[in-house]
Amino acid sequence: MKLSLLGLGKMGYNLALNLIDQGHEVITYDINHEQVKEISSEGAIPAYSTEEVIQQLESPRIIWAMVPAGEATEALVSDLQDKLDPGDIIIDGGNSNYKDSIRRGNQLKEKGIHFYDVGTSGGINGARNGICAMIGGEQEVFKEIEPIFESVTVENGYLYTGPLGSGHFLKMVHNGIEYGMMQSIAEGFDILSKSPFDYDYESVSKVWNHGSIISSWLMELTEGAFAKDANLDGIKGVMNSSGEGKWAVESALDMQVAAPVIALSLMMRYRSLEEDTFTGKVVAALRNEFGGHDVIKN
Amino acid sequence: MKLSLLGLGKMGYNLALNLIDQGHEVITYDINHEQVKEISSEGAIPAYSTEEVIQQLESPRIIWAMVPAGEATEALVSDLQDKLDPGDIIIDGGNSNYKDSIRRGNQLKEKGIHFYDVGTSGGINGARNGICAMIGGEQEVFKEIEPIFESVTVENGYLYTGPLGSGHFLKMVHNGIEYGMMQSIAEGFDILSKSPFDYDYESVSKVWNHGSIISSWLMELTEGAFAKDANLDGIKGVMNSSGEGKWAVESALDMQVAAPVIALSLMMRYRSLEEDTFTGKVVAALRNEFGGHDVIKN
Amino acid sequence: MKLSLLGLGKMGYNLALNLIDQGHEVITYDINHEQVKEISSEGAIPAYSTEEVIQQLESPRIIWAMVPAGEATEALVSDLQDKLDPGDIIIDGGNSNYKDSIRRGNQLKEKGIHFYDVGTSGGINGARNGICAMIGGEQEVFKEIEPIFESVTVENGYLYTGPLGSGHFLKMVHNGIEYGMMQSIAEGFDILSKSPFDYDYESVSKVWNHGSIISSWLMELTEGAFAKDANLDGIKGVMNSSGEGKWAVESALDMQVAAPVIALSLMMRYRSLEEDTFTGKVVAALRNEFGGHDVIKN
Amino acid sequence: MKLSLLGLGKMGYNLALNLIDQGHEVITYDINHEQVKEISSEGAIPAYSTEEVIQQLESPRIIWAMVPAGEATEALVSDLQDKLDPGDIIIDGGNSNYKDSIRRGNQLKEKGIHFYDVGTSGGINGARNGICAMIGGEQEVFKEIEPIFESVTVENGYLYTGPLGSGHFLKMVHNGIEYGMMQSIAEGFDILSKSPFDYDYESVSKVWNHGSIISSWLMELTEGAFAKDANLDGIKGVMNSSGEGKWAVESALDMQVAAPVIALSLMMRYRSLEEDTFTGKVVAALRNEFGGHDVIKN
Repeated sequence: MKLSLLGLGKMGYNLALNLIDQGHEVITYDINHEQVKEISSEGAIPAYSTEEVIQQLESPRIIWAMVPAGEATEALVSDLQDKLDPGDIIIDGGNSNYKDSIRRGNQLKEKGIHFYDVGTSGGINGARNGICAMIGGEQEVFKEIEPIFESVTVENGYLYTGPLGSGHFLKMVHNGIEYGMMQSIAEGFDILSKSPFDYDYESVSKVWNHGSIISSWLMELTEGAFAKDANLDGIKGVMNSSGEGKWAVESALDMQVAAPVIALSLMMRYRSLEEDTFTGKVVAALRNEFGGHDVIKN
Repeated sequence: MKLSLLGLGKMGYNLALNLIDQGHEVITYDINHEQVKEISSEGAIPAYSTEEVIQQLESPRIIWAMVPAGEATEALVSDLQDKLDPGDIIIDGGNSNYKDSIRRGNQLKEKGIHFYDVGTSGGINGARNGICAMIGGEQEVFKEIEPIFESVTVENGYLYTGPLGSGHFLKMVHNGIEYGMMQSIAEGFDILSKSPFDYDYESVSKVWNHGSIISSWLMELTEGAFAKDANLDGIKGVMNSSGEGKWAVESALDMQVAAPVIALSLMMRYRSLEEDTFTGKVVAALRNEFGGHDVIKN
Repeated sequence: MKLSLLGLGKMGYNLALNLIDQGHEVITYDINHEQVKEISSEGAIPAYSTEEVIQQLESPRIIWAMVPAGEATEALVSDLQDKLDPGDIIIDGGNSNYKDSIRRGNQLKEKGIHFYDVGTSGGINGARNGICAMIGGEQEVFKEIEPIFESVTVENGYLYTGPLGSGHFLKMVHNGIEYGMMQSIAEGFDILSKSPFDYDYESVSKVWNHGSIISSWLMELTEGAFAKDANLDGIKGVMNSSGEGKWAVESALDMQVAAPVIALSLMMRYRSLEEDTFTGKVVAALRNEFGGHDVIKN
Repeated sequence: MKLSLLGLGKMGYNLALNLIDQGHEVITYDINHEQVKEISSEGAIPAYSTEEVIQQLESPRIIWAMVPAGEATEALVSDLQDKLDPGDIIIDGGNSNYKDSIRRGNQLKEKGIHFYDVGTSGGINGARNGICAMIGGEQEVFKEIEPIFESVTVENGYLYTGPLGSGHFLKMVHNGIEYGMMQSIAEGFDILSKSPFDYDYESVSKVWNHGSIISSWLMELTEGAFAKDANLDGIKGVMNSSGEGKWAVESALDMQVAAPVIALSLMMRYRSLEEDTFTGKVVAALRNEFGGHDVIKN
């Protein structure tokens, strides 16, 4: 099929190549024109503006956006809304907040434009070789774009999840689970690292991937990480986070769900961003106040 | 090889069959003689006492115990200690506390008996078809029993982990990670269940197993569970636990490791054992005391 | 001084009496006219509409609202906004979200109306006999209303906290701390309740209030609760929550603060609202899938 | 009364002075003889060995030990056990584990020596001017020593808690609550410190101590700490811990109590002891593995 892929970051670039491999005609655009040029040498049809994108597609146009959530997506959708025709289709494959997706989808619907909120998982490698896609939007029109998803996902790797917002909501929860799993694995290795034993972490993660209940893609990635740097000496333990873990916790709060493990996984990431904490200062000061316990001076 | 498997519970029974399939001569014993009879019809050599076990093996004897951790293992090891000869080998494949394993191993060493603490993962199905084994004990003698592990584990599914205790310690941490992963997955589905969307949980777990970062054995089991009971209506949310999660948290405390996710996963299990809590009563009473907020009467 | 108190719920009613005791002329109004009648017998000047309130005050009018946060406050402020004159003053003493207070304050400012967001603590008893007030809004005009706060608070019990929103923000954090403290106390008594000892909880809370580091108003209230019902047998452990704890956690997330104890205190409240959980069902089902562990049937 | 106070650390020294003030004859001993000399100038009767202590007391002797929990207490009790006579009384006012106290008490009972496990709270200032005491041990003999507790505690500040171990168990739970309260307060100020407002922390803690639900001794100490160092710039946020918080969590685990807030308060203390964590390294490495997210190099 003929479609356009907007946004050539790590995920978008690889997904574009994946689409090309699968025989699609892919018009690519990015605000960074260098990326457009580069990918045109790999079989993509270049476009240097959204106007060019639109001119090169026939109605009903299919445009897959892979741009950062928030302002960039908002700007892009707003731009496309003015230029597209009724019947055209926008796929947001980024990590947008599901509430934004519902709002955008409803806005676009007024102009007759179809909108799909698609959560994608699988990382860069997945984008290139087969992603997992969770797709929310109108069920009727979904058939028109289903072959695209069939082609770029792994086998059984896509799911129509329901109405507007349900794709990004599901991806958000997916990332919440991911945070919890990652923190679980990491805490386990932290206990090992302070244990009286001298484990080889690569071997441990390898054996845990062969026949154990906790074998998982994340454990395979753990093995890969230890294979490169046996004790992760080269890495600082700063755990950044994108918006999705936070939204998952906020959704849990909105729905009054006790999700302590997902919440804590996120909060330990925040904790890791600080060398010292005000919480710590207050507790240390209090111990000194009542018990005369020494504090460490700054 | 010729060896004995003691303890024909769910794990032991299946592991014995696995050993037999792999061409070993397996003398089996259990305090429940019915189990011994039953498995003898599937190729095992029956024994109705530990004396009979010992008589049917030649030195150096190899005895693999798969009995419940704690008292049962203590009694069995103590019994064997008096009856075995120097050079004989005991493998504890149960979920013993690593501190007990170190103590037992050192005691047995005084009598010249070799002891291996082996954490096994893979569940019942793994026991039957290929487990994952983490093996602590003397490195030198390990070679004598390595072929057994090679035969009953999945490919790359065993690891010699170091000195006495290191096998059960690793399994303990494995279970801590398992608790965290399970709770993470479960919280995710809890959020889904209260979301404004109407997800089919089996489909969700299926797509998450195809190309997503959180694809894992546990997610496959999740899919299996939802395939049997789409909304788990038939199951009460009581989360029991064996000792290992608790020991993992205790070890984290001993080593001053912050392992909040593993700790919380365990505590939410404890919470699930109670219909009502004293914590809840105190907080409800306090809200009433200062704010006149209504309490619900018992 | 002459002022009006709008909203005669538990807090507002008692605060009105407190204001009257302090010699103020208090015009009271509530949508429930019965409350207005009742309090008029205790010295309040009745008003049966906001128009009547406004007529009975001279500019610059001072109106203190004690109505539920959210819709009720929004409606009242919106109503007053149309009827008041420049220079008039609205005090929101309810538990509004600080973001709403900033928005409302800025809107009112455009019409020349001064707005103060006042977090009040102390419970019903405090409202009657001396509250604690955290006051955000314009510093200049604050002097005009300071005598009111001086009169109805305990000694040293009010603080001008800074610009719009700072009062309600501080109250929100106050409540986050309150949640954490209450949960801490409650968990402690839960441990006692399952201990091998047979403590008398009233005596315990009493001794903890005399010379111990954890002596506190909340512990006094704990003592009071146990004095009425020695084991809280009559109370169900359902821990409801108002919005403030949730907003405190959301603010922590927004500011990337690790506040695990406040977050968990809230989540345990959510947990207490459910007899059974979907989280529990998923974990129980998984244990059954891999370990054949029995599940409890619903 | 005549009694001996062993152990002249911060708590013991001040308690000895308190006892002297109350008119008791106090024989003091410490392994650090300088301390003994110093306090003898303040009215204490010096002793430079436990033998001297015993010689200066008549049966039934009363000996109050205020030495560090663990080895020091073990050694002291063991020493006294051999030297004391039936009917003599040992009071352990330190922070011993209640299981040790039960064991010691039972051992001493065999020799006819009475043992009391006394949890003391109130900090250094309390030791000097009035502590809070939770007293476990034989009820019958308690009457003999009750006047001592009556004299050195604040009004209503002592409680006979039940059999052996119940005093130290109660103190352990007290400290668990204390950890939770401290962390709650500290998290609140951490949120304030990252808020858009510019609060004066001393004023905030002061107003929170006047009429607010969270007014407490700990909040007064918070006010004191901010009075000395307005932003705690001079203090590093390292939160050490003694054994009691850990034992409280372990007891919760033993009794299957969900005590997430107490557990997390402890774990955040452990987290504060590390500049970087292995947990953080693993999560950062995993994010890099699947998402190509940059890691910060060490």
